[in-house]
Amino acid sequence: MTYDALVVSAHPDDAEVQMGGTIAKLVGDGLRVLLVDLCDGEPSDFAVAGERVAQAQRAAAILGADRVFLDGQDRLLTDTLSLRLQVAALIREHRPRMVFGTTDACVHPDHAAVGPLLSAAVFYGRLDHWQRVPGGELLADTAPWNVERLFFPHCKMEPPWGRDFAFAVDVSTTYDRKRAALAEYGSIFRVEEGDRLLTLYEAEDAYMGRLFGVAYAETFKSQSPLLVTSPTVFLPALHA
Amino acid sequence: MTYDALVVSAHPDDAEVQMGGTIAKLVGDGLRVLLVDLCDGEPSDFAVAGERVAQAQRAAAILGADRVFLDGQDRLLTDTLSLRLQVAALIREHRPRMVFGTTDACVHPDHAAVGPLLSAAVFYGRLDHWQRVPGGELLADTAPWNVERLFFPHCKMEPPWGRDFAFAVDVSTTYDRKRAALAEYGSIFRVEEGDRLLTLYEAEDAYMGRLFGVAYAETFKSQSPLLVTSPTVFLPALHA
Amino acid sequence: MTYDALVVSAHPDDAEVQMGGTIAKLVGDGLRVLLVDLCDGEPSDFAVAGERVAQAQRAAAILGADRVFLDGQDRLLTDTLSLRLQVAALIREHRPRMVFGTTDACVHPDHAAVGPLLSAAVFYGRLDHWQRVPGGELLADTAPWNVERLFFPHCKMEPPWGRDFAFAVDVSTTYDRKRAALAEYGSIFRVEEGDRLLTLYEAEDAYMGRLFGVAYAETFKSQSPLLVTSPTVFLPALHA
Amino acid sequence: MTYDALVVSAHPDDAEVQMGGTIAKLVGDGLRVLLVDLCDGEPSDFAVAGERVAQAQRAAAILGADRVFLDGQDRLLTDTLSLRLQVAALIREHRPRMVFGTTDACVHPDHAAVGPLLSAAVFYGRLDHWQRVPGGELLADTAPWNVERLFFPHCKMEPPWGRDFAFAVDVSTTYDRKRAALAEYGSIFRVEEGDRLLTLYEAEDAYMGRLFGVAYAETFKSQSPLLVTSPTVFLPALHA
Amino acid sequence: MTYDALVVSAHPDDAEVQMGGTIAKLVGDGLRVLLVDLCDGEPSDFAVAGERVAQAQRAAAILGADRVFLDGQDRLLTDTLSLRLQVAALIREHRPRMVFGTTDACVHPDHAAVGPLLSAAVFYGRLDHWQRVPGGELLADTAPWNVERLFFPHCKMEPPWGRDFAFAVDVSTTYDRKRAALAEYGSIFRVEEGDRLLTLYEAEDAYMGRLFGVAYAETFKSQSPLLVTSPTVFLPALHA
Amino acid sequence: MTYDALVVSAHPDDAEVQMGGTIAKLVGDGLRVLLVDLCDGEPSDFAVAGERVAQAQRAAAILGADRVFLDGQDRLLTDTLSLRLQVAALIREHRPRMVFGTTDACVHPDHAAVGPLLSAAVFYGRLDHWQRVPGGELLADTAPWNVERLFFPHCKMEPPWGRDFAFAVDVSTTYDRKRAALAEYGSIFRVEEGDRLLTLYEAEDAYMGRLFGVAYAETFKSQSPLLVTSPTVFLPALHA
Repeated sequence: MTYDALVVSAHPDDAEVQMGGTIAKLVGDGLRVLLVDLCDGEPSDFAVAGERVAQAQRAAAILGADRVFLDGQDRLLTDTLSLRLQVAALIREHRPRMVFGTTDACVHPDHAAVGPLLSAAVFYGRLDHWQRVPGGELLADTAPWNVERLFFPHCKMEPPWGRDFAFAVDVSTTYDRKRAALAEYGSIFRVEEGDRLLTLYEAEDAYMGRLFGVAYAETFKSQSPLLVTSPTVFLPALHA
Repeated sequence: MTYDALVVSAHPDDAEVQMGGTIAKLVGDGLRVLLVDLCDGEPSDFAVAGERVAQAQRAAAILGADRVFLDGQDRLLTDTLSLRLQVAALIREHRPRMVFGTTDACVHPDHAAVGPLLSAAVFYGRLDHWQRVPGGELLADTAPWNVERLFFPHCKMEPPWGRDFAFAVDVSTTYDRKRAALAEYGSIFRVEEGDRLLTLYEAEDAYMGRLFGVAYAETFKSQSPLLVTSPTVFLPALHA
Repeated sequence: MTYDALVVSAHPDDAEVQMGGTIAKLVGDGLRVLLVDLCDGEPSDFAVAGERVAQAQRAAAILGADRVFLDGQDRLLTDTLSLRLQVAALIREHRPRMVFGTTDACVHPDHAAVGPLLSAAVFYGRLDHWQRVPGGELLADTAPWNVERLFFPHCKMEPPWGRDFAFAVDVSTTYDRKRAALAEYGSIFRVEEGDRLLTLYEAEDAYMGRLFGVAYAETFKSQSPLLVTSPTVFLPALHA
Repeated sequence: MTYDALVVSAHPDDAEVQMGGTIAKLVGDGLRVLLVDLCDGEPSDFAVAGERVAQAQRAAAILGADRVFLDGQDRLLTDTLSLRLQVAALIREHRPRMVFGTTDACVHPDHAAVGPLLSAAVFYGRLDHWQRVPGGELLADTAPWNVERLFFPHCKMEPPWGRDFAFAVDVSTTYDRKRAALAEYGSIFRVEEGDRLLTLYEAEDAYMGRLFGVAYAETFKSQSPLLVTSPTVFLPALHA
Repeated sequence: MTYDALVVSAHPDDAEVQMGGTIAKLVGDGLRVLLVDLCDGEPSDFAVAGERVAQAQRAAAILGADRVFLDGQDRLLTDTLSLRLQVAALIREHRPRMVFGTTDACVHPDHAAVGPLLSAAVFYGRLDHWQRVPGGELLADTAPWNVERLFFPHCKMEPPWGRDFAFAVDVSTTYDRKRAALAEYGSIFRVEEGDRLLTLYEAEDAYMGRLFGVAYAETFKSQSPLLVTSPTVFLPALHA
Repeated sequence: MTYDALVVSAHPDDAEVQMGGTIAKLVGDGLRVLLVDLCDGEPSDFAVAGERVAQAQRAAAILGADRVFLDGQDRLLTDTLSLRLQVAALIREHRPRMVFGTTDACVHPDHAAVGPLLSAAVFYGRLDHWQRVPGGELLADTAPWNVERLFFPHCKMEPPWGRDFAFAVDVSTTYDRKRAALAEYGSIFRVEEGDRLLTLYEAEDAYMGRLFGVAYAETFKSQSPLLVTSPTVFLPALHA
């Protein structure tokens, strides 16, 4: 089955925290989105084993996305050939137009691993003749696929990007859905008590939104520079 | 009369060189564009007085834009209150959604003056009560106007921006029109002889285009960060 | 009379918006603070002439600071010799250890003028022999004074600085006072109605604070690199 | 036993070269400091095996710090899981408020490995449930610990940071001690002959110091932005 | 045998694409140049196995350089100890004054591996006593060698460096030779049909050249800052 | 009379402090150098009026350069049309291949004015038809002249540039001459007493030199990117 977008994250909940509003927008526009978590997020602090995966599946359902888990080990994720090939295999199978994933992360080492891993996977996806590459057989039976765009949502464990991001997405209309998806992670966030991290995350989205005069916005960097058909695609800024 | 976009430049031909393809695209999409030159470009090397203004009017007509000239002095342009107010007055009169102008220029001092002048003019345009500001009477009788976006095309006397621009516009379909507009400046460019500057300018647009796998692209910075409704507005990149 | 700190701003309310919490902290620590507004902020949208100055004086009183107004013209402030000398004269008169003022502003031209003006004024303040400088007589009768530190609070009309600031000040304990001071500007902010700008400003302070695990923080750049006696002066970060 | 600060370096002598003056200051202020060298520095050019470790222990004693050596291989240090866990174990054992270590190094590959390794180790240190992480058992029996601050001294094999560092520490009063500690490394530095490297190192500290009008200063970057209680914690600059 | 310069690349054709004109210039000036490809470039899309190596040897001959191939695996190159030591061994054997190699690459993971690998190899090359380093025996029998300069040509899969490179080399006089060398790679580039990639590559060299008023230029970054005997070594710029 | 290089500075002694060693090298290589001070440096702290100009002339003689003074006012220098035209007139009269001048200065406002002033003057110098520009008559009777290169020495009142400069010049062989030239400014520097500023200045040159393994080096930025005939023009670095 094909997907229009793959969102590749280190852990369950990263995709929602970083770009849950954008995922809901893409789905609302009729695109098919697959969330790919590089591990199952175990061990988790307040959950019995397996509970976090179930939470993640419910959160994906709320956003209208599908979800798969790779077999990486939480905390010990690095940019390995095995994970590169697994992600590349998913890209060739699902032929997405866009791929999303964490970049510029230096607090959590798992997050730091995603950016280079994803760049390599997108590149591997477009190459042919893997049957002749020792160790690359996983890709031997699938056809090359060119991803159009690789985008990177902001990791909320890092300081804000300030002015240094490529674009923001207005997610005001889908923010309720993002909030609902995050609330599924009951073993991570104490929603009723005004969870400190959730409040910080929402404060970031609200603050970036206010800079544009909208309620909420999520920010992204881009692997390649942006190209548009016309500057009219951009929404107004608060101060031009 | 209202315009959708004002393109403010130091000299006649700057607008065409920097973003002629984008102007033609905007016009082709049904937008009304006004070119504002801060001076008449006199003295010019190989033209009799007044010839350059006539060339500029023909070039604007080819692009489908209107054109006005302010009374600045070529070579001696600086960020003066008088020019700020004149541009602000045009903004209030024509109520554009977008304003464009040169920034980050350090070779030609006239170009260097445009960026701060334009930021101030856009800001002046939105303020009220000018009748109470000594020296600001020029804006006293017009209503405030909020420009949605201030964008800056690349000045071709400067080194390329490399990766450091906000977005590029695919101008492949309107590049012939840009070329035709520039050819009107017969006293500046020796078109038949393969003018060195024209060739350099086109080489930049072609090179930036090839980075995206299209024929020609013009690059822009932005006063404020970019906001979009969805990441799907961006065209494919050559390498994702 | 001497002051420990001068806070130089373009308009009444800039000092409070940018660093009201820090001003209150300095005063609370027993330092004497003088607010210097380069103009009286007229014309103001919803106030009768003179009302804004009265609001500003009340706001200063709430913060525990004194306040003076220079004779610049709101909207038309630029980096002039006259304003440089006036600020330098205040520096020599009041002999502050620290000077604060706006920098890196590109939305409001008045704000953009403050940074270079202030650098020059601080430098003028330390020079001798002004009686021999034609045009510099204003400083002839005062003794040179070396300011120890020139700091720049973040201008809230600009995008956030992201990671690119020198230090933040924890203003959680004095934030109520900042809020109260801002509330005095009844002709600018609609406090009861949840003023859009005030909400944005507070969102920035809260967001920066949360990055450190505190309620509110104000961010600053520094003219010169920072020097400390020991790295123990820094408060904990959320993620080390 | 707890320590207030851990200083993690690739080789014996790195800690002293990079921040010997700051270590002596911390110790002088009553803090307990542990130096952690990722390897024993063998082979060394002019020393018999084991001599360098003895030199390092004497140097630590001069600074008033304790010292341990991990089992990495000089020249072949990389950011491995094993070293991450070993450092994290030391953090959990000694519960330091501050951790220091090399960053931004691109000349010596051992130095280049320290920054990401240390970020990961500090993060690992704060996580719980390691008994459920295959390969992470080394941390299973110790309690999580939150480091308050991760700072990075300048690597003296690299060009100076210019303006781009977070803060400098005035080490004028402890510089003699730094010099004495470095002199213990007789097999590396030819102290009597005016060792070329030692002279370069001291020139950097003296030059950075002079920028502030003090005798010697050591410069640091910071993992997270700086937070202070008041801007009064900063010492005067030479030019404000 | 000694060489004056080693050019280390991921794949056959990288050296020619990135700096073929500079290689031809060095050779033309009487220097001896060795091209070192970290792999043999297999599998290649349109070539039978072994054909690409033959093409590479012919291309080197056209440039006047020698060529060797290491045993890395195309697509799976990473910064391994084995490759570091192999390159260091070549450096000690051939004692070059200059080493060149790719940096700042994020599209092709093989290219991304070259920069850190090369920095380490150059550093390993200068160290002694490898017989005492377990795993480092490959270097035990060769004498240390100090490379004078490590330079990085621009990877043409990346966006241009804009203003942010150390220097450009005027390769106008040797560009025919570069073009001829690239034409040998008949299984990669469709020369007769106006190959899209070749056209993009030449457009970059031409564009960078025109910025200086010359026909073609190749751009380089530098591991260390540049030092010259006099500023007169620099050729004229188009706009000073 | 023609000169090969013009060195344009705010004050007498700036040229020597910033690039005295390079001036002596250029002269030693047979180039003719003219120092242009924008003002006479009055008032000066410990000199009677006119003494500083005499000191400056002696210093220039020691370096082997000629010297002229423009009529700017020390402390009040700004980027005026008058100074632009005066410098442009000198450029057209003396037809230098290279022009040098301060940039990136934010401590002393006089220094901050030099960079943009000089860029404009170099550009004015190459334009024709000034007789038709009201206010530009000063250039009417001289022929246009294209400067090849505009370089900017480091202002020693600013923090070091770290890695961010274009090139350094090895001035070890001419440093005695620089020291002798500076010693002529007896009313500014207390040479015998180990003047604090002189010591700081020399510390910078020594420190930058040591980074390359030479005794002294002066650092420069460049208006345009650097172009060379071959990478062999660069001297060795300490760490490649």
